[in-house]
Amino acid sequence: MIEKVALISTGDELTTGRTVDTNANFLADRLFSAGFEVVAILVVGDDRERIAWAWRQAVDQAEVVISTGGLGPTADDLTTETVAEVFGCPLFLDEAVAEGIRQRFAAMGRDMPLNNLKQARFPRSAVILPNQLGTAPGFRLDVDYQAGRRHLFALPGVPREMKPMFVDQVLPWLLEHRGSDIAYLSRVFQTFGISESALDELVAGVVPAERGRLSFRAAFPQISVRLTVHGPPERAEREVAEWGERLRQRLGAYCYAEGDVSMEEVVGQELRKTGWRLAVAESCTGGLVGHRITNVPGSSHYFLGGVVAYSNEAKKGFLGVQKETLERHGAVSVETAQEMAVGVRERFAADLGLSVTGIAGPEGGSTEKPVGTVCFGLATATETFARRYQLWGTREWIKLLASQIALDWVRRHAIGAGLPETVRFR
Amino acid sequence: MIEKVALISTGDELTTGRTVDTNANFLADRLFSAGFEVVAILVVGDDRERIAWAWRQAVDQAEVVISTGGLGPTADDLTTETVAEVFGCPLFLDEAVAEGIRQRFAAMGRDMPLNNLKQARFPRSAVILPNQLGTAPGFRLDVDYQAGRRHLFALPGVPREMKPMFVDQVLPWLLEHRGSDIAYLSRVFQTFGISESALDELVAGVVPAERGRLSFRAAFPQISVRLTVHGPPERAEREVAEWGERLRQRLGAYCYAEGDVSMEEVVGQELRKTGWRLAVAESCTGGLVGHRITNVPGSSHYFLGGVVAYSNEAKKGFLGVQKETLERHGAVSVETAQEMAVGVRERFAADLGLSVTGIAGPEGGSTEKPVGTVCFGLATATETFARRYQLWGTREWIKLLASQIALDWVRRHAIGAGLPETVRFR
Repeated sequence: MIEKVALISTGDELTTGRTVDTNANFLADRLFSAGFEVVAILVVGDDRERIAWAWRQAVDQAEVVISTGGLGPTADDLTTETVAEVFGCPLFLDEAVAEGIRQRFAAMGRDMPLNNLKQARFPRSAVILPNQLGTAPGFRLDVDYQAGRRHLFALPGVPREMKPMFVDQVLPWLLEHRGSDIAYLSRVFQTFGISESALDELVAGVVPAERGRLSFRAAFPQISVRLTVHGPPERAEREVAEWGERLRQRLGAYCYAEGDVSMEEVVGQELRKTGWRLAVAESCTGGLVGHRITNVPGSSHYFLGGVVAYSNEAKKGFLGVQKETLERHGAVSVETAQEMAVGVRERFAADLGLSVTGIAGPEGGSTEKPVGTVCFGLATATETFARRYQLWGTREWIKLLASQIALDWVRRHAIGAGLPETVRFR
Repeated sequence: MIEKVALISTGDELTTGRTVDTNANFLADRLFSAGFEVVAILVVGDDRERIAWAWRQAVDQAEVVISTGGLGPTADDLTTETVAEVFGCPLFLDEAVAEGIRQRFAAMGRDMPLNNLKQARFPRSAVILPNQLGTAPGFRLDVDYQAGRRHLFALPGVPREMKPMFVDQVLPWLLEHRGSDIAYLSRVFQTFGISESALDELVAGVVPAERGRLSFRAAFPQISVRLTVHGPPERAEREVAEWGERLRQRLGAYCYAEGDVSMEEVVGQELRKTGWRLAVAESCTGGLVGHRITNVPGSSHYFLGGVVAYSNEAKKGFLGVQKETLERHGAVSVETAQEMAVGVRERFAADLGLSVTGIAGPEGGSTEKPVGTVCFGLATATETFARRYQLWGTREWIKLLASQIALDWVRRHAIGAGLPETVRFR
């Protein structure tokens, strides 16, 4: 029965702080969601003794070991030979892999340096795990070690290559060989505008504690809610569907997507559905709203453009905000936000005009309008909305949160949900 | 003699993949720069046995152990009591710390939950490390273990609290007790526009290999070059100054800053120096240039605003790009870029007009103008510049790289350096 997994991350770039270990994070997240327990993560540099130490420790702690890194062609890539040595499995050259590497180089019109053949060597009895995106295949090795049967996986360290190999080749094997007919199924929902503790209350009772679990992951400014259900496969499948729907209903308009989908992608989907074309007038966000909207491929279908009106002159000249409005209410006011939204809509001949004006700090705040005061406006052909929020945090957080609120307004308007009174995170 | 350090990161959020372990990366980077070797990083969840295992392994591997996490007030914060147990140092309550915690709660107008007193308990003979930014102090414990004298540091897991504690309290202690009069000094330079291998050639011979080291860290789109010099303190100080200057001269205009300074901060500094006020016209970057400029506090002093002209209508209406120019040369052309820069400069009454127009992909490319074709323009009162580059990568990379080039143009123009013919990263 496979329950426990140990992870090894290998590379000098990790122990010298040049690179953050995102591989272990990715693997831990996926393993946890699938019902496995990561008992330890061991990170070592490109040093034969240390790598050997890590593998010995890992097999002491867990039935499965998954390692990333150290499979490259250079002299400091030591994972394969170290594993072969520690577990007494001499290396062999796999001719098919060697030929594949030769062909890769030929296709690039380059001679293959001889050390690249290193990547065609594997411990005896290893099962080779093909790498579609690079020259370094991985391998699985099943060994009998002091503490019992152990399953060792070696994957390359390049995240782009490692991730699909894990998802397509490692995880299915683990699930098949779990040695238990308990399935772990999960669904993830993205939420915005509600704090983690309020979320916790909101979803209380949706999932019976003995069979499922809800976990929250705050990644400012959104919080994702993961539902994990375990049990016999058929029942788990039924329950994850049913409880997922119940959960989604409870989350209501706070939930903007299921899965790994961003707010700007959702906004794009809604704008395509409605056929509306959008223009934005930004002050304190400085262009961040437009940047996020245009991160989505094909956004030119619904995004016309915007004005970054950082100065009052720009608010008047480019957006038609009235001099009197600025004098009486100030650049950061619901009145100005409203005129910005109306102005940008008209001047871009858009269906929807969106505006943000606020004080991102650290300077520029006052008693009446402290740092974090941000006003938003939304104009359509028939209606206008404007509202003031009190945001918090650093300049960076305020800008990011303001851009999220602006995008969320478009989404909420498109799905006919009301605009929120306040926005929370913690 | 202290050379080797082992790191322990504790927390279920790490072993379940909810959080990336940035603490270990920060510590590894700082320790490496100071001449220490991180022999292993051990990551475990909030489990007493696993934490004990990690500490035992760590003291076997290194003279110094630095742990982060597990110092909070809740039942799953187990670092202090586990360390006390493993190393046979019973806990004591520090009255001064306890009183400080009580006062913190009083200042917030709240009663202190009793479990917060946990944070005032420390292993006997530990030296308390004050935490200016949170309730959890850290501690240092010197113990004689099987393998010899060991120095154990426990720090909180919140990065904002941990980092200053390490820099102000741990690192100075390590340097003082290194037991060697060898100093490790370093300087970091930020570069842009040149590949790592070309950098490597450019700086060859600047530093004698036996006494110093150059290391590169690529964080797209910039590459930082770190010079580390070791030797007797006085000599090292002289050499790091001298070689640093030599290095900076070699790097030339590719080097945009020393230290942890961003391109947008440098642009802000240069604009303040020259007194120039900037306006930007963006197409494919969608607002990213404005966003980055306004990430710098006080940017309203030199940034007037911009236009995100995603559609041709916006390029004509808001920026005065000629219909004929768009028809003859297309929206992505040096001609259009030039007119955008001139137009945005005039209409914002700015000193400097900056423009970007390109094809970020994945769609919209052609044989003549493939994805990654990006044109830039810069207009002053007396001159205009425009140039076309072939960029590469995903939509996200192309946008980011384009924004970096645009900012770099402003910097180069301000310091009187030429605008580059091409831009490289790898």
